[in-house]
Amino acid sequence: MLEYNHGGAIQAAAKKYRIALSEWLDLSTGINPDPWPVPLLAMRCWHQLPQVDDGLSDIAANYYHSKNALPVSGSQAAIQALPGLRKVSKVGFFAPSYSEHWRAWQRAGHQCVVVHRDEINQALPPLDVLVVVNPNNPTGHLLDTTTLLNWHAQLSARAGWLLVDEAFMDMTPESSLSTYSHRENLIVLRSLGKFFGLAGARVGCVLAESALLQQLASQLGPWTINHAARTVAKLALQDEAWQQLTKQRLIEDSERLIGLLRRFDLQPHGGTALFQWIRSSDALAIHQGLATQGILTRYFAEPMSIRFGLPLLEDEWHRLEEALARVC
Amino acid sequence: MLEYNHGGAIQAAAKKYRIALSEWLDLSTGINPDPWPVPLLAMRCWHQLPQVDDGLSDIAANYYHSKNALPVSGSQAAIQALPGLRKVSKVGFFAPSYSEHWRAWQRAGHQCVVVHRDEINQALPPLDVLVVVNPNNPTGHLLDTTTLLNWHAQLSARAGWLLVDEAFMDMTPESSLSTYSHRENLIVLRSLGKFFGLAGARVGCVLAESALLQQLASQLGPWTINHAARTVAKLALQDEAWQQLTKQRLIEDSERLIGLLRRFDLQPHGGTALFQWIRSSDALAIHQGLATQGILTRYFAEPMSIRFGLPLLEDEWHRLEEALARVC
Repeated sequence: MLEYNHGGAIQAAAKKYRIALSEWLDLSTGINPDPWPVPLLAMRCWHQLPQVDDGLSDIAANYYHSKNALPVSGSQAAIQALPGLRKVSKVGFFAPSYSEHWRAWQRAGHQCVVVHRDEINQALPPLDVLVVVNPNNPTGHLLDTTTLLNWHAQLSARAGWLLVDEAFMDMTPESSLSTYSHRENLIVLRSLGKFFGLAGARVGCVLAESALLQQLASQLGPWTINHAARTVAKLALQDEAWQQLTKQRLIEDSERLIGLLRRFDLQPHGGTALFQWIRSSDALAIHQGLATQGILTRYFAEPMSIRFGLPLLEDEWHRLEEALARVC
Repeated sequence: MLEYNHGGAIQAAAKKYRIALSEWLDLSTGINPDPWPVPLLAMRCWHQLPQVDDGLSDIAANYYHSKNALPVSGSQAAIQALPGLRKVSKVGFFAPSYSEHWRAWQRAGHQCVVVHRDEINQALPPLDVLVVVNPNNPTGHLLDTTTLLNWHAQLSARAGWLLVDEAFMDMTPESSLSTYSHRENLIVLRSLGKFFGLAGARVGCVLAESALLQQLASQLGPWTINHAARTVAKLALQDEAWQQLTKQRLIEDSERLIGLLRRFDLQPHGGTALFQWIRSSDALAIHQGLATQGILTRYFAEPMSIRFGLPLLEDEWHRLEEALARVC
C-alpha cells in the first residue's frame, strides 16, 4: 500500500473479527448515514476542468453566513496546509480531540502542547495558535461563541491564530464563529462530510479573512476539488428543503440513540446529533463485544470511551439493540 | 476570486470577444473531446471515505505496465509536491514546454534553468534534476527511451532525478518510461485528463520506486482523490474496448486535423494525436481571427505559435474549416 492509509477501520475490523465487509453495521464514524442524494451528473463534470468562478465559493459563504469561503478538498487539505503558513509557533490543543490537527502541526515542525480547559487563562498567553474542535470530536463538548471570541481577541492581539474546526457544526449554526470569520487571525473549518454525509466527495471550506484565504489558495494550487465534487457541493449547499428535513430527522434519531443507550445503562457524557460519546471502564469490552457481532463502534483508550454513530434503517436499530442486550 | 484561477481561458475569451460561453468551440486544450463515458455512480462513492486499498493502484500499474503507481489528484498535485521532497537543487527544463513544472520548482526555492536539447551534454552534468515533458506540450516532440534512460543514468549516478511528464503518452505507450519507473531517481507522471478526457475528475498517477512514492503519499496526506473519482478511474483504466476504439478514432481524427490545416497552408511542426502545433508569424492573427468567430485555440508568444485541439462533431469540423477559410 503506497498511499497513506487512513479511515480504513472497517477493513481492519473485517480482517480482525473475520466478518465479511458487507456484513458490518458501521457506527464508527460521525457521518450522516442518510446522505444528500447525488443525482446523475452531466458529463462535463468529468470532462471539463473545474472552474473557481463556478459559484461554489459564494454559495458556501451564503450557507455558512460568512463573508468569505475558500472551498478545499475536504477540511483535511486545510488541516495539512495551514501549519505551512506560519513560522515555528507554539500551538495549543485540547485533549481528547480530533488528532489530525496535532499531527499536521507537529509534522510541520511546530511546538505542540496540550492545554486544559480549566487552566486556559494561564495556558493562552504563551500560545501563538490555539486549535479548537467545536463541537469537539469525540466528546461532543460545545464551546460558546463569547468564550471563543475572547480567546481569539487575546491571540489576535499578538498576531496569533484561533483555528476552529467546525466539522460537526451544521446542526447548531448559532454556535458557529463563521459570521466572525472575516476577522484577522480567526480561521474556521467546515466540512460537507458529516451533516451532508458526503465524506466520499472530499469537500470542505475554510472561512477566514480574504488575504489569508488567498495565501492558502495559492499554496494549495489549482483544481484541488474536482469538477464533479464542486457540482455536488453546490447543489447540496443550496438544497434547503433537504437540510430542514435532515435536521429534524437527525434530532429525532439522536434522541432515539440516547434513549437506546440509556436503556443499557450507557449514559452519554456528550455528543452531537451525529454521535454519542460514553466514558466507561467497560468501553473496550463493549466495543469488542459489539464487533464480534459485526457492529463497529469507535473505541478510545484515553480516556477510555466509546463513540456511537447513528444507525439508519429500522433493522439496523434492532440489530444494535439486540447486540447491546448481549453485551451489556 | 479567492481560489487560484487557472485554465479559465474560455471564460476570459467569452468576455474579451463578447461571445456567450455556450457559443464557443473550444480547441484550446489537448483534452480528448469524446471522454470515457461515466455512468451513474453508487451513492457510496459520495458517502463513504475513499479507501486506498480499493484496487486503483494495482489497476493503474497494470494499465501503465509499471511496478508501482501512486494515484494522485491530477498530475498537478504531484507537480506541486515533488519539489518539496528535495533540498535546494539545480533544475533544468526544456523550452517551450508546460510551464507548471517551472513554476512549482521555482516557488519551492530551487534554481531553475532552461537547457537546450542540442547542448544537453554540457548542460546535464551540473543539473540535480531534469524535467522533461514527453511528448512535449505544445511542440509534440517525442524523445526516445534510449536517450532518456541515458540521461537518467547520468543523473541517478549522483542521486539526481529525471522527472518525465507523460500526460500525452497514452497513444504511444512504447515510448513511455513507465516500465523502467521503479528505477531509483526516475519519476514518471501520467494523467487521466488527456486521452481519457477526464480532466474534470482530477486523477493522475506517479510512477517511481516505492520508497519515493511512500514519501510523496505521506506528504500529500489521506483522501487526496475523492471516492467518486477513484471509482471512475478504476473503470476507465480497465475499459480496454473503449481504449482500443478511442485510439483508432484519435489517429483518424488527428490525421483529419493535419489534412485540414495543411489545406490552409498551416503545416504542423509537431503534434500528438490530441493536438497539432504550428509555428507561424501569423499565429496571433490566426488565433484572433478564429476567436472573433467563436473558435478558441491556444496561442503562444514564444516561439510565436498556435495549438489546435481536435473538433468532435461533424458540424464542429465544418465550422473550423469555414472559419479558417475566412482567416487564412
